[in-house]
Amino acid sequence: MKQIPIIRIIAGILLIITGICAGELPPLNLMPVPAEVTLTGDRYLLDAKFTLTVQGPPSSRLGRYATRFLRRLSGRTGLFFPQDFITPAKVSDSAQFIIKYERLGQIILTEDESYRLTVGKDKIELLAPTDVGAMRGLETLLQLLAADAGSYFFPGCKIKDAPRFPWRGLLIDVSRHFEPVEVIKRNLDGMAAVKLNVLHWHLSDDQGFRVESKVWPKLHALGSDDMFYTQVQIREIIEYAAERGIRIVPEFDVPAHATSWLVGYPELASAPGSYAIERYWGIKDPTMNPVREFTYEFLDKFFQEMAMLFPDEYLHIGGDENNGRHWNANQEIQAFLKAKKLKDNHELQRYFNQQVLKILTKYGKKMIGWDEIFQPGLPQNIVIHSWRGYNFLAEAAQKGYMGILSNGYYIDLIQPAEYHYLVDPIPADSKLTDAQKKLILGGEAASWGEIVTNETIDSRIWPRTAAIAERLWSPACVRDVESMYDRLETISLQLEELELTHIKNYEMMLRRLTGREDVTALRSFVDLVEPVKQYDRHFQGVTYTSYSPYTRIVDAARPESMTARKLRHLVEGYCRTDNRLELDRIQQMLTIWHDNYPPLQSVIASAPVLKEIEPLTLAADELFQYGIETVEYLKTETQPSAKWYEDVAEILRRAKQPAGQVELAVVAPLEQLIQKLRD
Amino acid sequence: MKQIPIIRIIAGILLIITGICAGELPPLNLMPVPAEVTLTGDRYLLDAKFTLTVQGPPSSRLGRYATRFLRRLSGRTGLFFPQDFITPAKVSDSAQFIIKYERLGQIILTEDESYRLTVGKDKIELLAPTDVGAMRGLETLLQLLAADAGSYFFPGCKIKDAPRFPWRGLLIDVSRHFEPVEVIKRNLDGMAAVKLNVLHWHLSDDQGFRVESKVWPKLHALGSDDMFYTQVQIREIIEYAAERGIRIVPEFDVPAHATSWLVGYPELASAPGSYAIERYWGIKDPTMNPVREFTYEFLDKFFQEMAMLFPDEYLHIGGDENNGRHWNANQEIQAFLKAKKLKDNHELQRYFNQQVLKILTKYGKKMIGWDEIFQPGLPQNIVIHSWRGYNFLAEAAQKGYMGILSNGYYIDLIQPAEYHYLVDPIPADSKLTDAQKKLILGGEAASWGEIVTNETIDSRIWPRTAAIAERLWSPACVRDVESMYDRLETISLQLEELELTHIKNYEMMLRRLTGREDVTALRSFVDLVEPVKQYDRHFQGVTYTSYSPYTRIVDAARPESMTARKLRHLVEGYCRTDNRLELDRIQQMLTIWHDNYPPLQSVIASAPVLKEIEPLTLAADELFQYGIETVEYLKTETQPSAKWYEDVAEILRRAKQPAGQVELAVVAPLEQLIQKLRD
Repeated sequence: MKQIPIIRIIAGILLIITGICAGELPPLNLMPVPAEVTLTGDRYLLDAKFTLTVQGPPSSRLGRYATRFLRRLSGRTGLFFPQDFITPAKVSDSAQFIIKYERLGQIILTEDESYRLTVGKDKIELLAPTDVGAMRGLETLLQLLAADAGSYFFPGCKIKDAPRFPWRGLLIDVSRHFEPVEVIKRNLDGMAAVKLNVLHWHLSDDQGFRVESKVWPKLHALGSDDMFYTQVQIREIIEYAAERGIRIVPEFDVPAHATSWLVGYPELASAPGSYAIERYWGIKDPTMNPVREFTYEFLDKFFQEMAMLFPDEYLHIGGDENNGRHWNANQEIQAFLKAKKLKDNHELQRYFNQQVLKILTKYGKKMIGWDEIFQPGLPQNIVIHSWRGYNFLAEAAQKGYMGILSNGYYIDLIQPAEYHYLVDPIPADSKLTDAQKKLILGGEAASWGEIVTNETIDSRIWPRTAAIAERLWSPACVRDVESMYDRLETISLQLEELELTHIKNYEMMLRRLTGREDVTALRSFVDLVEPVKQYDRHFQGVTYTSYSPYTRIVDAARPESMTARKLRHLVEGYCRTDNRLELDRIQQMLTIWHDNYPPLQSVIASAPVLKEIEPLTLAADELFQYGIETVEYLKTETQPSAKWYEDVAEILRRAKQPAGQVELAVVAPLEQLIQKLRD
Repeated sequence: MKQIPIIRIIAGILLIITGICAGELPPLNLMPVPAEVTLTGDRYLLDAKFTLTVQGPPSSRLGRYATRFLRRLSGRTGLFFPQDFITPAKVSDSAQFIIKYERLGQIILTEDESYRLTVGKDKIELLAPTDVGAMRGLETLLQLLAADAGSYFFPGCKIKDAPRFPWRGLLIDVSRHFEPVEVIKRNLDGMAAVKLNVLHWHLSDDQGFRVESKVWPKLHALGSDDMFYTQVQIREIIEYAAERGIRIVPEFDVPAHATSWLVGYPELASAPGSYAIERYWGIKDPTMNPVREFTYEFLDKFFQEMAMLFPDEYLHIGGDENNGRHWNANQEIQAFLKAKKLKDNHELQRYFNQQVLKILTKYGKKMIGWDEIFQPGLPQNIVIHSWRGYNFLAEAAQKGYMGILSNGYYIDLIQPAEYHYLVDPIPADSKLTDAQKKLILGGEAASWGEIVTNETIDSRIWPRTAAIAERLWSPACVRDVESMYDRLETISLQLEELELTHIKNYEMMLRRLTGREDVTALRSFVDLVEPVKQYDRHFQGVTYTSYSPYTRIVDAARPESMTARKLRHLVEGYCRTDNRLELDRIQQMLTIWHDNYPPLQSVIASAPVLKEIEPLTLAADELFQYGIETVEYLKTETQPSAKWYEDVAEILRRAKQPAGQVELAVVAPLEQLIQKLRD
């Protein structure tokens, strides 16, 4: 829908690419970039006569997908297409868009997701071995939609595509903050749009047990504050995901991260109860008792129930971050250690895991768990989920074990998209053999839920997760950060049509904070800040609980300031080229921000909740003034006094201090500009 | 949260009002306005030590309501309150805010919803006979929240409040367009915020049957395109509504408006099948057969099932708009008419209704239906729902029948809030006796669903429905339109915290149409337009179906342009006072709009879907130019030529033509300004 690519298409009409790694990226807003793209220079003009047909073994699933495709196309273009619902019964040979597939795909790790898409002048054809592959191709076609002044069209092309990795996931933690059914559904739609295929559902932790259990009903009844999914809802979501070619891998974290289990069943615990649902964050002591028979009887019944509820062949048992305190303090456990000649708690946890593995195997499930579960002697169908990093995965692969990566993909750490984008599950310098590389199945973006609510979760997941999705689908050579950001901007807008709130909740949250509909002045400033990074938010004098307000500026602010990025580009451009035009544009930006100071102060003066950012607005404004002066000095090729440099150093120091747990994202480029002046 | 009221509170510190009708409205953002408000001049300063307690017979329902109250307060203020979940077990006498109630309210028509709220300097007290009344009071307190530069506070006051009418409803039509569970839930939250207490759920019509039926499963299986509520979901929503003191009255429209029933059960029909789900809008021919025994056997089983599913004592049978065509064409039906000596189709429908009434009575339900069901001999516990108007209700009341009003409250007709606001179920000049007036139970805003999707429904319902809610709750004397609009602006923002999308989907839709994140230029124009009124949208050459795109400018545009309202005020002010300052502000507005023309054209040139509004943007811009000239002539007290007046008349004519089914809302005030020049 953006103009730029079209112009580039026209200019690049004779550009032929076969195999993405052979040449430059095609000028198309595709994310993830397909394995092979050939542009033909043709155009398929889209009008209100557009029809499609689905050919293959009857799949109402694909019919519904194609129907949604039509609605989204219609929604963007305002075209009144003649078709209502695409059903297996309504097959036509005269449709302009023909979707053909050979068999119904299974929603399993190894399924074929490849497709071929040909956009001709009068005809579009999508071929795939499975209906799941056809779904992937439909998303590609939607991304291809372009426009000129007169009409909408699809650029003529031949695309041959298949994923690099078979496990491309998103972890959503619904324990720390519960996320209602519709939040999960719209994120499944977002995942499908960027070809992710695994929802890793972190369903239990210290702060909440989120699934209805019929065999152990006190789990959800006492462990969830009444915020849990019924089994009917779980099935509904599994079905919803399957309709989009997405697996659901449930995680029940054991033996630690389990306070919420112990509220209803304190007899599971290693220390005497009673237990209450945890309200604070961090690694907690409560841990299941690994030496009592009851624990395994309990888990046997529990996993039997969950194995029936969740159809995926994998079940995630967590297994991470057991601090061992309650084990150390329990004499029965210590006696067991001695009796069984177990060296330490790690060996005891191995013992525990082996029992759990037996249970899972009994109920037909394969085990996946965090790094900590890895131990010699495990069957080779388990999967190691690494929060520690590639080296750990490589080590496991060398021993013949499969793994997936989440280290580098923790999106709750509020890092820029490019940071995640450049993390590769198999780095270019990997020493693994090809066979070993095959054991690295992919990765998962991880949206941990401590500081995320249903209002903010979409903006924490999107659009950055689309960059991770590209890493996991596209050929490894696709690493052009600038191209990624260009395309991400468009994809982010398209994700809105799936009801994702990552853009629209931004101003909504600012409206609530100010009590005003017009948030121009406040937004102009918040566009320049980012939440503090990593886990810093928990170490700045604010103690968060599960029921704290996650509605402040730090929660509204986007993880990555695109305005700061733009300034950085201008400054870098100027430093490289000494181009005066760039200096003019920098000056223009700084002047706008500086002029915004009085209206911004007036907003802050009327909303006490904004007081916390006041020091930063002041420091920022002083920095903008010095920035404007810097531009003047550079233009006039004069030097300020030594005193000026002293003053600016002090201002930079102050502008680097976070306030209200946000930091000013434009400090670094301005510092660079000042450095340029000094040089 | 707005500054203005606070200033007004300070200024009006000694203002004492007892009984709203005795004086001017209190300077508070309350909607609906309570029956009695006394301002004390005190302030309760809100800080992070704020706690509350609930005293009364254990009600986890009210505990949950109070918990949500705390979260909303915390969300707006960023204050970290110490309480997690309010449960009946946790009662304290030392809380600053004490909620006391006497008994659990029933979710029925006649329940007591009154409350008394006292905000003192150090203490807040909410007293109510029922927990439902306490819920109403909690919403009032949330609306009282105000702020100055330093802190949040509640203005000291004594409020004594109770509703004027016991039936204050919102009709949501989920047949024409299905609305997912979360849409219903967030609208129930919005209803509770403005003290509405009935969701009238229009669950079946020609275009879709939306409830799972276990006794007649082909109803939902073949009549819904797989878009229906399961019985589990229905129960979940009924429970959700009850938790907010809201009744749910289901409507199953019979014998007409019933095509979707006939898809699965053509044997119910008056004309031979087969039937398909209706895709077009309007009054359709398919009608149930009123002379076959099967019809009543079917309805008996069906209503038995629905009577069990829906706990409310009322069940709405529709009964409207039977065009009689299929009855006329059916010989069996005609023979029945003769045999039973029924004069016409109206008498036949009476016969049908009597059979249905017998069924409802058998299953313990009272009947409500549209005007058409009214007939002599019906029991007096039925309710007439009038789409025709007050006169019809008055006639029924004189005969001893109860009624509710929807005429004047059809919010799908895209009228301004003030239009609905001034419609009273019992007009001031009513000739009814007091006893007869009591039979008029209230009214319902009606959100018919033809041109409404889950993306746009909130913006069609809110904020205008809040004005109707005030009409139905507040004393009849509360009719100050300016005050209503002032308060509506604030209430509208507060409704966003309930996840309603009426504000945030506006720019989202513009982003989709343009494919750009920055929609400033387009929004500046769309702020000035409104969708065409009444049912005009269906008579302008566009044929809509249930699957047409409802994503165009006409769908994004708000029902009521607040910018146009502002211009109208300025022009009226100037015409009244000849104040030059107002002329300056008019000129400023016109200049901004005129300057917006080039960027607007550039947006339109890149998005073919916007082409349809191009003629209106052109006419508007010419009008703005003439408007600027008008201001100049007025300022210089000179007169333009006769030719100028001819030209401007032509431009006004063109600016009045809708384009893309929107109309320019600023034409009338500009015409008034030109008239002022002429005079």
